[in-house]
Amino acid sequence: ATHRIAVIPGDGIGTEVVPAGLRVLEAAASAFGFRLDYEQYDYASADYYTKTGTMLPDGWFDQLNQFDAIFFGAVGWPDVVPDHISLWGSLLQFRRHFDQYVSLRPVKLLPGITSPLAGREPGDVDFFVVRENTEGEYSSIGGKIFEGTDRETVIQETVMTRTGVDRILKYAFDLAQSRPKKHLTSATKSNGISITMPYWDQRVEAMAQNFADVAVDKYHIDILTANFVLHPDWFDVVVASNLFGDILSDLGPACTGTIGVAPSGNINPERKFPSLFEPVHGSAPDIAGKGIANPIGQIWSASMMLDHLGETEAAAAIMTAVEDVLAVGGDTLTPDIGGTATTQTLGDAIRRQLETN
Amino acid sequence: ATHRIAVIPGDGIGTEVVPAGLRVLEAAASAFGFRLDYEQYDYASADYYTKTGTMLPDGWFDQLNQFDAIFFGAVGWPDVVPDHISLWGSLLQFRRHFDQYVSLRPVKLLPGITSPLAGREPGDVDFFVVRENTEGEYSSIGGKIFEGTDRETVIQETVMTRTGVDRILKYAFDLAQSRPKKHLTSATKSNGISITMPYWDQRVEAMAQNFADVAVDKYHIDILTANFVLHPDWFDVVVASNLFGDILSDLGPACTGTIGVAPSGNINPERKFPSLFEPVHGSAPDIAGKGIANPIGQIWSASMMLDHLGETEAAAAIMTAVEDVLAVGGDTLTPDIGGTATTQTLGDAIRRQLETN
Ligand SMILES: CC(C)[C@H](C(=O)O)[C@@H](O)C(=O)O
Ligand SMILES: CC(C)[C@H](C(=O)O)[C@@H](O)C(=O)O
Repeated sequence: ATHRIAVIPGDGIGTEVVPAGLRVLEAAASAFGFRLDYEQYDYASADYYTKTGTMLPDGWFDQLNQFDAIFFGAVGWPDVVPDHISLWGSLLQFRRHFDQYVSLRPVKLLPGITSPLAGREPGDVDFFVVRENTEGEYSSIGGKIFEGTDRETVIQETVMTRTGVDRILKYAFDLAQSRPKKHLTSATKSNGISITMPYWDQRVEAMAQNFADVAVDKYHIDILTANFVLHPDWFDVVVASNLFGDILSDLGPACTGTIGVAPSGNINPERKFPSLFEPVHGSAPDIAGKGIANPIGQIWSASMMLDHLGETEAAAAIMTAVEDVLAVGGDTLTPDIGGTATTQTLGDAIRRQLETN
Repeated sequence: ATHRIAVIPGDGIGTEVVPAGLRVLEAAASAFGFRLDYEQYDYASADYYTKTGTMLPDGWFDQLNQFDAIFFGAVGWPDVVPDHISLWGSLLQFRRHFDQYVSLRPVKLLPGITSPLAGREPGDVDFFVVRENTEGEYSSIGGKIFEGTDRETVIQETVMTRTGVDRILKYAFDLAQSRPKKHLTSATKSNGISITMPYWDQRVEAMAQNFADVAVDKYHIDILTANFVLHPDWFDVVVASNLFGDILSDLGPACTGTIGVAPSGNINPERKFPSLFEPVHGSAPDIAGKGIANPIGQIWSASMMLDHLGETEAAAAIMTAVEDVLAVGGDTLTPDIGGTATTQTLGDAIRRQLETN
């Protein structure tokens, strides 16, 4: 099989970790006998914005829509372009227009990575955050009135549709059902956010009727964040609205010490449009250009991409290689996880491990 | 001086910890030579709702408005009345109608309390979350269209006013300026929530002009929750919108192991209306009725109340007593923090410590 991949490195360390991810993908392709056809694009970056005044060219939709998936680095460079412009001008457009309504983010304690939580061991924590990725709190509807006066008032609307809520819940329930624990946790805030969140709860209850074998609980987002810290072992699949999922999928990796290595998939499960795979970390202006960014978030995202494309064995082999290299540890690791290596050295170690395994 | 206090125990463990708090308040009053006049009310509870069909009687506003402060336990009993009804019918009404626009929540690593974070010591973590408490994401504006069909759509509006945003920022900047570190962190999400949060950022920048000696930084809420876990020592005063503040003020106490003992003030700084003091924990149906709830959240709230009423010495003495009892530890503590004592035993130990000190 041949998979067509659009590669968009974006900004900052995105341009450093994407090449490491590609080398691992190529090794996986030769080892497992499939082909990858890439095309690389320089848009969705601050450089492109500086040159053209926009984040994306006309015709980006048709261009990217020909691919099976998008392999994405990171976007955002606030010194050059405000984040809400760079993000709404690129990544958030992809999510919305390619209807990547699932953001899937694993939270897993890996060997060799120190968790900030006392006494937690690899194996203790292993769950998914399933985030709604196209609507909810990330609408851009609203505006400002009485601008510049004391009466200035700003309004922004949260929009939830039955279609949007039900399909993310269905995805999350299916995922929970496929796992040994069959446990789904819903993130809500129906005690305070009085219209949209009670609606979310209702739809969870309705969907649960179709999944009698899945154990369901719900927590308000405030205590849920507390429980991520206090009881990360409680969770299996956590489903959340766009904003709550955004929060939980940074907090979860922080609790497992993996904020710099966590991956994510922005998925259109029906494969009607290309899905996009990217590390959870951003462009990291503070370390960009030094060649020391941890490539594991990008490589783990590559594994998720292969999984989505049906190359499940290759996907698993990449993760085994990552875990093997982490378990050995030492100098081969990048500074953020206790080593002294460059992006390229760690990336190559994982690639070689994959070839050897 | 005489302070007039309305006492509202509410539901569940609220009715167990409030008496412990009152005994400590009485001891503080005799030790420091002021008077407290209480009146206790049974409304804002599920029992009251069952009897009357409403959470509050007509005339609650005028009745409570005569007091200098409200000493509140906890409200919510989901088996009897859905949370959004009990909360919007009581606590959230108080916050809005008494214009308690500041929610002040300390996050502090106390002696004798085990933090879930590895290697953190008392003294390492000591900051305040200042939460906007009347507007923002907690508007009840919005509704549902195409109900019961596939096109069902639910909308809820976030409303920020210049008045509302500026006054909470001013309070937070003043607080930061009064502290040794003079450091303010703003919680935002202006890269994703594209109208209200960039506005929040603008007002922070404008307010910062008046506080040249305060160091200001901002984090998006997703990475900010991660940093609460990874770097709780970074923070001094964290200012946040209603929803973000709600999240951060549960997560912060979780990181310091104090979720069951954290206090909060719902404050009208101008003292035009009574302020309300309550523990961060809720009514805790799972342990209610057993007499083992930790009273420290309520007692710490009593200390915050006295501080607000100008009894700063008495307020400090209560906290010294709490810390002394925690430092000794052992059986006098309630089960949630490693002891075997009842609510009353721990409460009395703190009261006696206050009398001895
Ligand atoms: C009970 C709930 C409505 C409330 C809130 O969200 O404000 C609580 O979580 C709090 O923090 O006081
Ligand atoms: C950069 C930002 C707009 C984005 C989001 O909030 O979705 C990021 O935090 C993420 O989680 O992918």
